[in-house]
Formats: sequence, C-alpha cells, structure tokens
Amino acid sequence: MRLKAVIRYDGVHFSGYQVQPNKRTVQAEIEKVLFKMHKNKPVRITASGRTDQGVHAVGQVIHFDTDLSIPTASWKRALNTMLPDDIYVNYVEEVSDQFHARFDVKEKEYRYFLHHGSDKDIFRRNYEYHSNKRLDVENMNKAAEQFVGTHDFTAFCAANSNVKGDKIRTVTHTAFIEDGDKLIFSIKGTGFLYNMVRIIVGTLVEVGLHKRSAEEIGEILTSKDRSKAGKTMPPQGLYLWKVVYSEKDK
Amino acid sequence: MRLKAVIRYDGVHFSGYQVQPNKRTVQAEIEKVLFKMHKNKPVRITASGRTDQGVHAVGQVIHFDTDLSIPTASWKRALNTMLPDDIYVNYVEEVSDQFHARFDVKEKEYRYFLHHGSDKDIFRRNYEYHSNKRLDVENMNKAAEQFVGTHDFTAFCAANSNVKGDKIRTVTHTAFIEDGDKLIFSIKGTGFLYNMVRIIVGTLVEVGLHKRSAEEIGEILTSKDRSKAGKTMPPQGLYLWKVVYSEKDK
Repeated sequence: MRLKAVIRYDGVHFSGYQVQPNKRTVQAEIEKVLFKMHKNKPVRITASGRTDQGVHAVGQVIHFDTDLSIPTASWKRALNTMLPDDIYVNYVEEVSDQFHARFDVKEKEYRYFLHHGSDKDIFRRNYEYHSNKRLDVENMNKAAEQFVGTHDFTAFCAANSNVKGDKIRTVTHTAFIEDGDKLIFSIKGTGFLYNMVRIIVGTLVEVGLHKRSAEEIGEILTSKDRSKAGKTMPPQGLYLWKVVYSEKDK
Repeated sequence: MRLKAVIRYDGVHFSGYQVQPNKRTVQAEIEKVLFKMHKNKPVRITASGRTDQGVHAVGQVIHFDTDLSIPTASWKRALNTMLPDDIYVNYVEEVSDQFHARFDVKEKEYRYFLHHGSDKDIFRRNYEYHSNKRLDVENMNKAAEQFVGTHDFTAFCAANSNVKGDKIRTVTHTAFIEDGDKLIFSIKGTGFLYNMVRIIVGTLVEVGLHKRSAEEIGEILTSKDRSKAGKTMPPQGLYLWKVVYSEKDK
C-alpha cells in the first residue's frame, strides 16, 4: 500500500531534508520512525524535492510503501506521536501505486518571509529575514512580475549547482503580501533550480532598497550570468509552502 | 549616570534571567557586554525581577550606572550590536540616581500564550502552550475574574518557594484575548509570587477543559493549599510583558 503524507518541519535544527552521514536530517528522522514501526525493516521515503539547511516546510509531500495494517486515519497520529517536535504530519492518505511524490509534481509554491522596520523581532529570528531599512514594495512587485513566464534561469541558479539538463523553468505566479511591517513573497512554478528562490528574493530586496531598478530583471535573465543577479538570501525566511499534483493522483 | 533600559529576550536558550555559575543567563550576557564596553570594569545590572528558564520577556526593565560618555541616544545601537541575537534592547533612557528597577515597580503585566486546536503549530512550540482539546474561554474568563483583588496567593505559589514575608498580593486585571485558535492570557498586578502566573494559568486551563468549575477559585484561594490548585504550566508560553513605574521615575 502506498501512502502520501503532507508534512511540515522547522528547518532550524536540521542539516536540510536529505539523508547525509552523521547529520540530523528530516528524511533520516522520518525513516527512523518508520523503521521502528515496521519492526526494524528499512522503509525509504520519497519527497517532492529536497530543502536546504535551515529552510522550513509547511506543505512538503512524501510517499512511502507499507505493509502495516494500520487504518489510514490512524497513521497521522501514530507518526506524530513518534516524530520529534520539529516535524509534524498534517495528513496522510492512501494513493495509487503509480503516485510518485517527485515525478508527479505539477506546481510548487515557496514563500519567503521578510520584516522591514527598525526593531528586530528576536522571537522570529529563525523564521524571517529582517531588514533595518524599509523596502519599496511597489517597486519589488514591479520587478517580481517579470519572473512570470518560461525563462532560462541560469542567472538565478547557484553557480555550484550540478543540475542535469537545461535551466529553463516556468514561473506561474509571484506576489508580495503585506501585513504591517511583515512581508511575504509568494512564488509558484513548475520547477525550481538550486537556490533559485533565495537568489530571486535577494535580487528583489536590492530593488526594494533602490540599489537596482525594477526594469533590470529582464536583462539579468537574458545575461544567464549568476554574477548579474543579487545575493542569495539566508535560508531562515524560506518555506516550501505547497506542492500541487494532478487530480488523478488524489 | 544611571540608565534605564527596556529589553526583550527569547528565553529558550537561557537558564533564566539571573546569573548562575556555568549557566547561560540573560544577566550574565548583558553584564559581559557592559564589561567590554567599560574596558574590563565590572558593571552590575538590576532588573525588575527574575524570570525562569524558558520564560520570555518583551518588556523587562533593567538599570545600571555608567561613567561612559556615550550619548543616551546611541546606547541602544551600541548594546544591540554587541548582544547575542536572542536579547534585544527596545530603548534606553537616562533616569535619576534614585530610580531602582526592582524597588520602584508599580505594576507588572505577564502574558501567557496558548493555542487550542487539533494541529500543533511546530514553529511556535517554544513560544506557546498547545492544547489538543478546545478550551471553554467563557468559563476561563469567569474563573480569571476571581483573581482580581488583594488575596493571599499561597495556594498559587510554588511549594518550594522561599519568599520572605507574606504571600498577599494584588491582582488588578485579568483577561483572555482570543484570536482564532490562539489565546493570550493577560494578568496585571503589583507583585507576583514564584510560579504564580504559571499555576494560575494551569488552574484556568483545567477550568477550560471542564475538569474544574469556575466557582472553585475562591475556595482554592481561601484554602492556602498549593495542592488544591492546578498544575504549573510549562515556561515557554510565559512572557514578562510590561513593567510600569510611577511618573516621577521617568
């Protein structure tokens, strides 16, 4: 039986999602719990994609196969009882054997949380990026719109990335949501390159600080030159927000 | 010159406010910074009161004396540059030599953050208390009102407390503020005993779960028996919110 689970995690104390030797990772913690539940039989989980050290998830999706006779409705509680307190299972459902958490992704949404204002919110230091200086949100929105569409995102991909194939991706939506001094950047697309969201936000912040003009985005995309784009934002403001699959996968 | 500072701190990684040998405490971190600023001369700070391990502060007040010729307006920035990222100075002002952060307290406000609902908010696990079961807020408010007034709070004081003098204190205000599934309990008073807020909230939560009736509060107060009151709530939901002084101290 194949199960799909939507999970959230606080990235602060993880060396990212993916298993690495001698590191605390999300995948390793979940597989450790499944190993115990399956009486010391290893169960491998597959996620929609990895997240880096310090990056959070609100709607990460995983799948795994099990032969346990636990009712689907009881899986959520069983997992949450055994998982550490920085991982939480939102829900679990049975899916067809054909469902694949990575290959079947139709669209992903990431969100990046920012705070602009003179006083830092220390309680949120691991959950948002703080800018002492105010950001020009109107300008940032103008720049953000230009990412929508199908582009070669080489300029917005970490230089040390070892992506196979091309760097052409489709962004379907970008928006800044304002709430007082808090600012949430939402970006949706069919696929994202390594560090792509963090470099896009880094470039937009420079637009917000009037260090660049909103009109530059097109040129940077065309240049395919990583050094033309802005800095990579720190991981703590980034959340894998939602992963969308086709209806047939439900 | 005597300075008064309003500070906030995230209690998660502190063994409380007060200096203790070989422990990371708020007082020790601030005094370490002042020691450096005063060219290795020890500067002792005095707070409005201590807070326990894991308890946060949004409006803790301290005072200290200095002979440095830093303009008052520059102190905030100077301290925040040197302090660790879980302590933040809200503002600094010059006060009279007569001002005393502990002796001159007129009123204190504490807040306790709760979340009731089936899904735990893992990003807030160090900043609020989570109850799987819904709490009856109307009932809790009825019970909370009964704390207002001057009472002997022996039943709501940690049994191992070594308070000198009596345990009569005056509570001036209590209220639950609702925001969706989030609940903030505010309590104001002229003075608080050891663990008093956490035991009051623990008792109110039992009222919210219908394990006790709202009418019991008076009897518990009269009993002066700690075992009649509810459990001590965990520290992570508690915030020292505000400390009020007389106008003359400003």
